[in-house]
Amino acid sequence: MADLLWEEVIRARERIAPFAHRTPFSTCASLDRAAANSVFFKCEFLQKSGSFKFRGACNAIAALAATERSRGVVTHSSGNHAQALALAAKLHHAQATVVIPEDAPEIKRLATAGYGAKVVLCKASLAARAEVTAQIVKETGAIFVSSHDDNQVIAGQGTAAAELIEDVGDLDYILVPVGGGGLLAGTAITASHLLSEARVIGCEPAEADDAYRSFRYGKRVEEVSANTIADGLRTTLGVRNFEVIKNRVFDIVRVSEDEIIGAMRYVWERMKIVIEPSSAVAVAPLLNHHLGIEGKKVGVILSGGNVEVEPFFQAILDKLRCTQ
Amino acid sequence: MADLLWEEVIRARERIAPFAHRTPFSTCASLDRAAANSVFFKCEFLQKSGSFKFRGACNAIAALAATERSRGVVTHSSGNHAQALALAAKLHHAQATVVIPEDAPEIKRLATAGYGAKVVLCKASLAARAEVTAQIVKETGAIFVSSHDDNQVIAGQGTAAAELIEDVGDLDYILVPVGGGGLLAGTAITASHLLSEARVIGCEPAEADDAYRSFRYGKRVEEVSANTIADGLRTTLGVRNFEVIKNRVFDIVRVSEDEIIGAMRYVWERMKIVIEPSSAVAVAPLLNHHLGIEGKKVGVILSGGNVEVEPFFQAILDKLRCTQ
Repeated sequence: MADLLWEEVIRARERIAPFAHRTPFSTCASLDRAAANSVFFKCEFLQKSGSFKFRGACNAIAALAATERSRGVVTHSSGNHAQALALAAKLHHAQATVVIPEDAPEIKRLATAGYGAKVVLCKASLAARAEVTAQIVKETGAIFVSSHDDNQVIAGQGTAAAELIEDVGDLDYILVPVGGGGLLAGTAITASHLLSEARVIGCEPAEADDAYRSFRYGKRVEEVSANTIADGLRTTLGVRNFEVIKNRVFDIVRVSEDEIIGAMRYVWERMKIVIEPSSAVAVAPLLNHHLGIEGKKVGVILSGGNVEVEPFFQAILDKLRCTQ
Repeated sequence: MADLLWEEVIRARERIAPFAHRTPFSTCASLDRAAANSVFFKCEFLQKSGSFKFRGACNAIAALAATERSRGVVTHSSGNHAQALALAAKLHHAQATVVIPEDAPEIKRLATAGYGAKVVLCKASLAARAEVTAQIVKETGAIFVSSHDDNQVIAGQGTAAAELIEDVGDLDYILVPVGGGGLLAGTAITASHLLSEARVIGCEPAEADDAYRSFRYGKRVEEVSANTIADGLRTTLGVRNFEVIKNRVFDIVRVSEDEIIGAMRYVWERMKIVIEPSSAVAVAPLLNHHLGIEGKKVGVILSGGNVEVEPFFQAILDKLRCTQ
């Protein structure tokens, strides 16, 4: 039977090829020893706009008819999807409007505006974000592009796993972080076709575990607390995403805030790469031996590297001032 | 006329091949635009022990006769050479003793000891370091391996530029940081043979500019202030190093502390890689247009990534505690 979702991933690869980076993979011998498995990291922190989100946003815009695209696109986001959509729109000569909550870091606003998007501030609630966005759609006719609950976005995110599987061959497990579920659903679609024996596992902060609970109870949980450092994963699992995930994902595991921070630090110190907390969520289960596996070949999508490094440099500057 | 120094670089490549990583190079489109040149980064932060220092230390130990090696090696260092020599000795089944000043960060001591070296603490002065080291040589017969003022160490460091030139072809300029001068001298030897038209430029913190002054006045300056964040470059230029540098280096340029920190931040944020301040010293002249060049092909050796990330994670933990 034809799998329309997988066909969209194939089409997404063609659509985004002229725009997205084919990111490399990376390995780390000391991490392999610590995790007791062979781990292959897909380097999406090197993707355009600094995260895998560019894949989905780019595919969604590329899939629009020219007449639709000319109306512009709109979304609400406080994070990586904002920058991704802004850049994808710019590359397609389309106007993007991004609704950003007023408490989002200034650097995110500046980056989004820097890619040429119109930034509209709103109050810091999901309701306010949705309301302002709906108003813009109504007034301008712009096309709404969800950060995750959209088949084209899901298909775009599925292209990362396709590249990883092409590059490193058969994997026993593929670990990805889960927030809204775009990357997890896309990865599961791809794996079910290219590597059906691989087990796809979603990794989630215990402090925002709606996907875990939805998966366990078979019913989508609609509320999520947002008390996690992994700012990219504070979103509730999407409707389309849950449909895919409940059928194609092997398991969802949870990690503590300490485990997230520890994994992030490990990657910075040993692999010398800057990943954001959301990426570390998919490394933490390995470093903390939560999966009970050994000697396996494991793929991990390091989803992004957009982290606010200000505290580090502020500490350096403070120290310099003291010694001068 | 045969160039004995270059012949040692060729031999060093053979000697370290079984032990060292052949590190990749990296590029960054936004940095190229900001610098107005095409820049090729040699990723020595991915080298074993986290810096290029492993090349020189490994070559120095590999070049010893078996009878010498069995006596063990000794050095004094508060930084990357300590870890590099410890690991190189371990891989050669030789005993390393490393004299570390008591004010060096604990993490450096632990890393050095973690590679199996015997760590001896001493008072925090160059005189104390030299004295304690000399005493160990006298008592144990161990071979002293200088962090920079040693022909085998210089030859080992010269292998990084050889790989970069092989990988990216003709470069107009090669920029490397200069402290003791091991990397700069090694690079200059290599470039003068493989790419004689390339201009090798040493990059130095203005706050520790003994190499700059030595180069300008043609006489080695023996004292250096150490008031720079680039902890790897607080060393005085070595005697052997100066001989090579004054004859084969095109220029030495200086950068301010603000420029070093700005370049480090740029690389962390845009390239998503963790480099230490000493590496940023060779990026800063490009981002600040100190060289007056445009459209050139420039190689930069990103010398290491051993930076204390504690302040960053401390700030994260503090913030988490406030919000919980």
